[in-house]
Amino acid sequence: MKTLKENIKELEIPAAFYKAVYGVEKEGLRVLSNGELALTDHPKQFGNRSFHPYIQTDFSESQLELITPPVNSIHETHRWLSAIHEVTLRTMADDEYIWPMSMPVVLPKENDIPIAKLDKIEDVNYRNHLAEKYGKNKQMLSGVHYNFEFDKHFIDELYHNQTDIADPIQFKSAVYLKLAKNFLRYRWLLTYLLGAAPVADSSFFKSERYEETPPKGYVRSIRSSHYGYANTDDVTISFETLTDYVENLEEAVNEGKLFEEREFYSGVRLRGTKTARELLTKGIAYVELRIFDLNPFDAYGISEQDMQFIHLFCMFMVWKDKASDMNDVALGKKMSDFVALEHPYEKTEFQEEGLTLIEEMLEMIQLTNGSEAALECVRQAKKQLLDPKLTLAGQMIKGIEEAGSYLTFGLELAHNYKQAAFEKFYALKGFTNMEMSTQLLISDAIQKGIKIDILDETEQFLKLSYKKHTEYVKNANMTSKDQYIAPLIMENKTVTKKILNDAGFKVPQGEEYHTEEEANAGFWQYAHKGIVVKPKSTNYGVGISIFKEGARFEDYQSAIKFAFKEDTTVLVEEFIEGTEYRFFVLNDEVAAILLRIPANVIGDGQHTVRELVAEKNKDVLRGTDHRAPLEKIQLNEIEQLMLKGQGYTTESIPDADVRVYLRENSNVSTGGDSIDVTDIIDDSYKKAAVEMTKVIGAKVCGVDLIIPDYQKPSTPENPGYTVIEANFNPAMHMHAFVSEGQGRPLTIGILKMLFPEAVQ
Amino acid sequence: MKTLKENIKELEIPAAFYKAVYGVEKEGLRVLSNGELALTDHPKQFGNRSFHPYIQTDFSESQLELITPPVNSIHETHRWLSAIHEVTLRTMADDEYIWPMSMPVVLPKENDIPIAKLDKIEDVNYRNHLAEKYGKNKQMLSGVHYNFEFDKHFIDELYHNQTDIADPIQFKSAVYLKLAKNFLRYRWLLTYLLGAAPVADSSFFKSERYEETPPKGYVRSIRSSHYGYANTDDVTISFETLTDYVENLEEAVNEGKLFEEREFYSGVRLRGTKTARELLTKGIAYVELRIFDLNPFDAYGISEQDMQFIHLFCMFMVWKDKASDMNDVALGKKMSDFVALEHPYEKTEFQEEGLTLIEEMLEMIQLTNGSEAALECVRQAKKQLLDPKLTLAGQMIKGIEEAGSYLTFGLELAHNYKQAAFEKFYALKGFTNMEMSTQLLISDAIQKGIKIDILDETEQFLKLSYKKHTEYVKNANMTSKDQYIAPLIMENKTVTKKILNDAGFKVPQGEEYHTEEEANAGFWQYAHKGIVVKPKSTNYGVGISIFKEGARFEDYQSAIKFAFKEDTTVLVEEFIEGTEYRFFVLNDEVAAILLRIPANVIGDGQHTVRELVAEKNKDVLRGTDHRAPLEKIQLNEIEQLMLKGQGYTTESIPDADVRVYLRENSNVSTGGDSIDVTDIIDDSYKKAAVEMTKVIGAKVCGVDLIIPDYQKPSTPENPGYTVIEANFNPAMHMHAFVSEGQGRPLTIGILKMLFPEAVQ
Repeated sequence: MKTLKENIKELEIPAAFYKAVYGVEKEGLRVLSNGELALTDHPKQFGNRSFHPYIQTDFSESQLELITPPVNSIHETHRWLSAIHEVTLRTMADDEYIWPMSMPVVLPKENDIPIAKLDKIEDVNYRNHLAEKYGKNKQMLSGVHYNFEFDKHFIDELYHNQTDIADPIQFKSAVYLKLAKNFLRYRWLLTYLLGAAPVADSSFFKSERYEETPPKGYVRSIRSSHYGYANTDDVTISFETLTDYVENLEEAVNEGKLFEEREFYSGVRLRGTKTARELLTKGIAYVELRIFDLNPFDAYGISEQDMQFIHLFCMFMVWKDKASDMNDVALGKKMSDFVALEHPYEKTEFQEEGLTLIEEMLEMIQLTNGSEAALECVRQAKKQLLDPKLTLAGQMIKGIEEAGSYLTFGLELAHNYKQAAFEKFYALKGFTNMEMSTQLLISDAIQKGIKIDILDETEQFLKLSYKKHTEYVKNANMTSKDQYIAPLIMENKTVTKKILNDAGFKVPQGEEYHTEEEANAGFWQYAHKGIVVKPKSTNYGVGISIFKEGARFEDYQSAIKFAFKEDTTVLVEEFIEGTEYRFFVLNDEVAAILLRIPANVIGDGQHTVRELVAEKNKDVLRGTDHRAPLEKIQLNEIEQLMLKGQGYTTESIPDADVRVYLRENSNVSTGGDSIDVTDIIDDSYKKAAVEMTKVIGAKVCGVDLIIPDYQKPSTPENPGYTVIEANFNPAMHMHAFVSEGQGRPLTIGILKMLFPEAVQ
Repeated sequence: MKTLKENIKELEIPAAFYKAVYGVEKEGLRVLSNGELALTDHPKQFGNRSFHPYIQTDFSESQLELITPPVNSIHETHRWLSAIHEVTLRTMADDEYIWPMSMPVVLPKENDIPIAKLDKIEDVNYRNHLAEKYGKNKQMLSGVHYNFEFDKHFIDELYHNQTDIADPIQFKSAVYLKLAKNFLRYRWLLTYLLGAAPVADSSFFKSERYEETPPKGYVRSIRSSHYGYANTDDVTISFETLTDYVENLEEAVNEGKLFEEREFYSGVRLRGTKTARELLTKGIAYVELRIFDLNPFDAYGISEQDMQFIHLFCMFMVWKDKASDMNDVALGKKMSDFVALEHPYEKTEFQEEGLTLIEEMLEMIQLTNGSEAALECVRQAKKQLLDPKLTLAGQMIKGIEEAGSYLTFGLELAHNYKQAAFEKFYALKGFTNMEMSTQLLISDAIQKGIKIDILDETEQFLKLSYKKHTEYVKNANMTSKDQYIAPLIMENKTVTKKILNDAGFKVPQGEEYHTEEEANAGFWQYAHKGIVVKPKSTNYGVGISIFKEGARFEDYQSAIKFAFKEDTTVLVEEFIEGTEYRFFVLNDEVAAILLRIPANVIGDGQHTVRELVAEKNKDVLRGTDHRAPLEKIQLNEIEQLMLKGQGYTTESIPDADVRVYLRENSNVSTGGDSIDVTDIIDDSYKKAAVEMTKVIGAKVCGVDLIIPDYQKPSTPENPGYTVIEANFNPAMHMHAFVSEGQGRPLTIGILKMLFPEAVQ
């Protein structure tokens, strides 16, 4: 019979062994700044928990459960964990935090601990049963469940490389069963390294049912010891064979020892099917490892390093020659319990076995062509094995003593983590490589419980799902709701103008010319009128001449010649007096109106332009490369020229209250200011903008209107606007976070348009 | 008081004077090849005449009236006339033609001339009245109505450059009223130049009501003389003032002298409003000039040259110092009647006045900076004035005598014009600068009476309207019916594959890699399988390696290295055995399936490859630059290399029945053959293709499937296909005209999707 180790060693490309799919479920209590449990309801903004894929409650209404989607890299898992935390923290009440440790905060009287207010009566009954049976305090322990699945191709390769087990499903189950049993035998090592519950608030030990004597002094993990929650002794489930496991579980439920199968609190659960029984036909798809305390030094309860070690440990459990039996499992339970109650600064009783395991893991990595990072990860564990102060529990003691108390230590961390989530409140740390609008959309989808698949990260292509309803989104607002022809119309400025003009909207009069001759022949139409002569393809580029008072024919001819140097098509349009506003139309409503002002600073009579710019650039809203709502103002050639035109240099000191411009164009992308004016523009303009988008067939559209007097109502007979452009895929982030006025979050509107059944 | 001439001379840019809007209505009888009137119904394919903007019937069911949309150039008008004729001729019965002359064909007994079978009872009543009052024969005369409108800006400029008339509407009406009266005074010159009805079949003069004595010998225009149709003498409408005109017309109707206002058969009608009365408040918008005989030498009844002269003549009627009064108008009528009955070879009685008019026209052109072409056009008229044989009537006599008879002459022309319309049956002469699919769509829209506005010709952007329903179309099948997200999905091959795969369709398994390392690490997934390694961005380009039997790791590594030389992203996909078919899905149905074969010739044992290619290229379906359904096969380097690979040169003589390939890829655009297989592929594949487009959200989609055995049904469990690509804006012309099998016209399906209410 070929061992799994032999089999793995024969793999053509051992990299397959290292591929896996991960998923994390992380519990955490909501806490007030005084260290008491937050007794408020789970925030309404998270929508209905009966479907939420990311943000749930566990036992208690105050106990968040944050869940990552299954993905195939640790880094990816961690960034989802990060994003879900950021969204959760930003949504929670101002004075609430996420408690970063496994042992609870100061608990109220047991009766006052609110059970999660779930919709389904069976879910509530189950929790009542747990409260009754184990006491609520125990249920307030929080931890991390780590779901682990080998790559399907890898299992497949192993299967084809052996003849001992004929059925591929049985083969797969055998692999995971070996993993499970060895894991239960050797879990003590993880308790040693990652145990992180050295002490608890006294309220934890005082139940209305019982009073426990807390362990004396610090231990490695109260939660992983017999003080944590465990099934009653009458529940004995064998992992010897899969059939044993399934039958034992069913028996325990039938005999009332367990309320449901999910009440089985094992360090490992065999997963992949709805009921245990189905495992026999469909096979074990993955394992759920449930022993991990929250790592308080990571903002999200488990670090990439932790995940990496657990992954290697799982591989090792399969690789190991030893295949544990139920005696080994029983031994393992005792060893882990023992280690959990050792003092964190003590060398562990099982150091020797630990060092052997470490050496074997290093050998495994070497024999399977593993990375240097993998070796280094195991070497770190070895150091911790030799120096207990380096373990999580060891480090926590230091932190607790420095802070003065367990509570203070935890609250400080909770504060810091919440503050960090607000530092760049407009972005998601894990997704800053994506456009800001997409980050905002992902945030909203996480909040509302709409499932996100990133189909193409560089292309900003998302799949969003709610129940059986799927929508695809590109660049945050290109969706199924727009007609295909709409962006094609908007892409072509001449066509857009014709269509809007035909529909009775006021557009700049003018024509498109392909030769100088043709353009000159058309001059008579523009005589005595203010005009703009411009190359067709540029808006703010060179080649533009503006004659506000009308042009003489000679000047017009020169302007035409000038424009034709830049493009093969030249537009001559009437010059429109007034201020330009961007109307963001979303699903037949104006969701925001923005006034954009060119990059500028306002003098104070004391600081130079350079200093004023530096000061303005300190604004957290200003960044570079469109990764912030506003851009930092530059001081390059073009800005210096602009200054020169106004009689300044970068070293000039403008008088107090004098506005100095650094740019001519008002684009936010070149350092411009954004001012929200949604509420002050007369409704007639909003109505007109919406009607325009209907004519074009667009549900998402940035309409640029020039309006001389926004308070004077516009009528179809006497329009107060001229429409300059209609833009598809208009920027959204610049409306959400503005220099002045009220920000208008738009991505939530996109979700509402796509999923009216899910977003109110 | 400033004269119009003075006013025009003061224009800053006189080019404005030359701008105008034109529209032509051209009548024409349907005729059989024996010269008899076709008594069949107006073709059903043209849809309902109650709305058709292009193809109508006039008095008789057998009398086509073809109408151009109002456009602002003569060339544009003529190409619309051309397109409408081509569509009409291609739709008519095989043995029917359009009679190219104003005087009718051989008419049946008057009772047998079918009155147009219109829906509205008032339209039928009107025609019955005409038949009663004038006799049906007279109503069978056909001609051209020329609608002429000065550019609005031009009229506006003139208005602002004078102070005599304060009201702009009155000013505009005054300009057109001057034009009308002068036109009626000097129309004889047009009768002389463009009169084209020298003789008629004897049946025309035999009515059941009366028998007329035909004029003796040839004349210039029977139609324009008193033999033509004219109102009864009791109808006298003054053009002295607009009020006179309106009141006289209303009186004549009220007194029963006219059935309706439209019964007023004047050489000029004042137009722009529904009723004459409205002209008083809204002003005259344009004039309808009704005196023109069909020019039989132009396939469409009026040449660009004719139109150009009429335009200049209209300008001249406004420019002229003389402003005719009603006495002049009465004189003009007599003069025109006189000229109409002159022998075509005779010098006209009014040659002297004619020469003066010509000189004044030339002067006008010179003083207003007109073009050389304009001058030349008038100089031609002068030549005709001096040499009567050059007039249309003069030339017709020559044609008639050469042919032997009036009928033979007309039938020969009618045959030729119909034949010409079929020469490139897949294109529209006037629109060959547009893509073929757009030409086909325009053809269908003309046929079905859907109004077409070309918004951007180079961009293939059309506006289509039917009653109040408007649709925009780009590149013939990019419409409002597709969701915007659909083409974005199809544009991204990786995203398309993910979505189709998630939905349960069979796609080639594989992955996308960004580094060699990553790709090599993925090898184990492909071991022992046929694979294709290719750069992401090319389909038929270099850098592709195919391992049909699976690759050894070393060979795979080389292939990866090779592919990365071409692109930053490399795809590794399983190799799929079978033949590739293009499924054209349109509105949830498979409208066509095409098998494409690389450019090839079949040997005959006698001709060289070069000769065989030349022979194959003679096919009318083969053209260049995608302006024909198939492309000519080239003999460039790539083709010669391909020949070399098979052991041939261009001078080899392949054995009989041996197929020699000139290309590896099967694209029609590189000379490939197209074989329609729509009816032979099992329905299960069509169902699958349609389901795929639904998942993507596409209504128009080219799905490429590889199918090893198209007769074996595909099931969701055992799909018989692998989907390779989904294409937006798929080519349509290649399905419409194929090398083998039945062509599938698809553009009509697009129209049906857009306008289900109009196209059955």
